[in-house]
Amino acid sequence: MSLLALGTLAYDDVYTPYGEVKMIEAGSCTYIAMAATYFVQPVQIVSVIGGDYNDDFLADLKRRGADLGGVEVIEDGKSFYWAGRYHDDMMGRDTLDTQLNVLADFQPKVPAEYRTSDYVMLGNLTPAVQSSVLDQLDHRPKLVALDTMNFWMDSALDDLKAVLKRIDILIINDEEARQLSGELSLLKAAAAIVEMGPKILIIKKGEHGALLFHNDELFSAPALLLPQVIDPTGAGDTFAGGLMGYLAASDDLSFDNLKRAVIHGSAMASFVVEDFGTRRLQTLDQDQIDARVQRFASLMHVAL
Amino acid sequence: MSLLALGTLAYDDVYTPYGEVKMIEAGSCTYIAMAATYFVQPVQIVSVIGGDYNDDFLADLKRRGADLGGVEVIEDGKSFYWAGRYHDDMMGRDTLDTQLNVLADFQPKVPAEYRTSDYVMLGNLTPAVQSSVLDQLDHRPKLVALDTMNFWMDSALDDLKAVLKRIDILIINDEEARQLSGELSLLKAAAAIVEMGPKILIIKKGEHGALLFHNDELFSAPALLLPQVIDPTGAGDTFAGGLMGYLAASDDLSFDNLKRAVIHGSAMASFVVEDFGTRRLQTLDQDQIDARVQRFASLMHVAL
Repeated sequence: MSLLALGTLAYDDVYTPYGEVKMIEAGSCTYIAMAATYFVQPVQIVSVIGGDYNDDFLADLKRRGADLGGVEVIEDGKSFYWAGRYHDDMMGRDTLDTQLNVLADFQPKVPAEYRTSDYVMLGNLTPAVQSSVLDQLDHRPKLVALDTMNFWMDSALDDLKAVLKRIDILIINDEEARQLSGELSLLKAAAAIVEMGPKILIIKKGEHGALLFHNDELFSAPALLLPQVIDPTGAGDTFAGGLMGYLAASDDLSFDNLKRAVIHGSAMASFVVEDFGTRRLQTLDQDQIDARVQRFASLMHVAL
Repeated sequence: MSLLALGTLAYDDVYTPYGEVKMIEAGSCTYIAMAATYFVQPVQIVSVIGGDYNDDFLADLKRRGADLGGVEVIEDGKSFYWAGRYHDDMMGRDTLDTQLNVLADFQPKVPAEYRTSDYVMLGNLTPAVQSSVLDQLDHRPKLVALDTMNFWMDSALDDLKAVLKRIDILIINDEEARQLSGELSLLKAAAAIVEMGPKILIIKKGEHGALLFHNDELFSAPALLLPQVIDPTGAGDTFAGGLMGYLAASDDLSFDNLKRAVIHGSAMASFVVEDFGTRRLQTLDQDQIDARVQRFASLMHVAL
């Protein structure tokens, strides 16, 4: 089994109360791929970079099981760049700078060998770009997941609604779910969003865990309590990568397995925030992941 | 088994986006007793009211299993009164009016027949008043739980710290836990608070559920998603009443049973917010409670 992942390979500057890092390799597809390759290989990346991107980092991604055949390199271009500063409470953040660079004119090209993928993760990008990946596939995948954000709800709602009709899982946060649906109650929000297309909805609540909606079933996953969050950047992408990597590897779309996937995504996200950028994801091993998943299980276990 | 409960019997005016009610019977002890009597009887109330309090309401409380022997009646006084307006998002609220009335000089008197109670719930009141109840007991109870708020952390921190040394379970919300401990991480906050006295800590997170800390064990209870919250007033007191009623009835302080108690408290709180004041608590039956507890179980069940 494979997982096709669309998203950015970016450079980030990140400032937090615990320190700062500059020009680290980041972006949605980096986090998705670094999490997903722990479960499934290859992770077929569709993205774009400038000639400035770190070859050693790309080689490491490849060694982990990423297929970079769908990464367009614009040699005289610069890679997407984002800079942000987290507030003292680590909950809010301000964007200091965004330079689209090669992302500005990105037209994703899905290589022939990716076009039969059964599992597709569409990272947060312009909805039209997300749709364009689906247009290029040979057949309807078994499972398409999509991440988006309030920016696209404000600026490209029609395109977003169009792509929502073509996907299976929408992954957004609680604020975005309320904005997209116009409903304050997350239960009503979920019902309204499912009407828009995705039959499965995952609402991320940050330090409060995640909710999984499918048909009339509902699962509430807790968040792990961490002594310290060093850098929340990429937590949502890492969650999505772990979730979709787990689903692609297990190839089981039952509600029970969707719940397990949410826990595995949550476990991966709980690691990534322990250090800046992708550092913590680079040093993980399977035993650590299994132990973390068990911590989630114990956190929510009750015998009634 | 019995449960001794200290708190207010009050009148509230409540304004929400869904309507308003005036001069309804409310107060922490009302909610605690109405929830706890579903599990254990008698619930021995220590409180104070004016001559204005509704006799029919008191008779109903008694019929439900409350013992009113510790309710001081100041015939020419007026009962405690609170008025508040909830914001459109139902999360924040503004206090419009507070009239302490008979509560201003309240010196709780614990009747002789209450003084051997093994389970004690100290509702949110001046820490010195909470301590005074413990002073009057014949022996150290098996379990003393205490609710408090940031107001006492600001105005009576020394008294609060003194009573914290004498209790077993502290029940506060996440914001209060952060204020009391000076720690942003709830994990660090819990460790700091346990050092202050209570060996068991419950952190309420409203629509995000509750956390239970005991020794090195941690349990994360989800919140039920409700289509509509009509009136959040008393949710915390109802949680505490359900929790302590369940513990007193089962007389089992194992971590497994503490977890069950948190779920039963959460179930009771999920009912009370469905209507104004105590209305929903008045119409409950055991089957509804059991079914609600099972909804919590299904919400958090995962087979890993």
